Amino acid sequence: MTDFNLTLSQEISAAPTAVWRCLTEPELLKQWFAPSPVTITVAEIDPTPGGGFRTVMEVPDMGEMDGGWGCVLLAEPARRLVWTSALGPAFQPNPAPGHGQFVFTADITLTATETGCRYTAKALHASDADRAAHEAMGFHDGWGTAANQLAELAATL
Amino acid sequence: MTDFNLTLSQEISAAPTAVWRCLTEPELLKQWFAPSPVTITVAEIDPTPGGGFRTVMEVPDMGEMDGGWGCVLLAEPARRLVWTSALGPAFQPNPAPGHGQFVFTADITLTATETGCRYTAKALHASDADRAAHEAMGFHDGWGTAANQLAELAATL
Repeated sequence: MTDFNLTLSQEISAAPTAVWRCLTEPELLKQWFAPSPVTITVAEIDPTPGGGFRTVMEVPDMGEMDGGWGCVLLAEPARRLVWTSALGPAFQPNPAPGHGQFVFTADITLTATETGCRYTAKALHASDADRAAHEAMGFHDGWGTAANQLAELAATL
Repeated sequence: MTDFNLTLSQEISAAPTAVWRCLTEPELLKQWFAPSPVTITVAEIDPTPGGGFRTVMEVPDMGEMDGGWGCVLLAEPARRLVWTSALGPAFQPNPAPGHGQFVFTADITLTATETGCRYTAKALHASDADRAAHEAMGFHDGWGTAANQLAELAATL
């Protein structure tokens, strides 16, 4: 089996506990999760298996985009956070996405290093077509810019 | 939010630990999970978050039906088992099901009673249409018959 993944990995000069806070505290999440100039107007997360995850983005000249409810699957403090858009809170399946859209699971791991931690974000898809669509949407640039914002924010905590 | 669920609940004259074994040990699972005269020819389960879950059924006059890989989401021994067909092993999204098919999450809880335990199996769906399709497919009869088989098997352990 192949997981049709896209992966972003980079060093962050902050402790895993600081990065974990940025991943799981709504007020911190809002500050880095969307790549500038996109901003986050609403962030909700209950970092426990079955907990809900939701962000609303504000895209310049386009307005608000509600990502809808996803579901937290694993939450191992300062180590690993997994959530998916295939399910909503309490593990309830979400309706299938519309044409040209796709679901994915985000599998984020933090590994302590001498200078902070390595942040690895993997996006898992159901098919190669979904993976390609996510890549064409700008996965590497978008998640890369967001990861830089995460690194800057975590370093201030 | 509504969870569009179907629920089956019944008393079982066996300890939660015995029922748990029937839910999570492949050789036991094969003996009760399909309502007779349907049988299970293959059962695989890794009862840990992210573990795979799969059964192949043998339906008289129809042959084998492979349910494909699902994913275990929660496994609290002798208390609660949750798995979903929306995801496969390692939380990878499954392709959207074909027309007329649906995904669901099974949320199974065991509660100790004076004579054994109460077994409650809830099937969560993405929409009322999916819930209705699962009901029309014979959810209550099928899961009810299987639960009786589960009760009989667990009482022998």
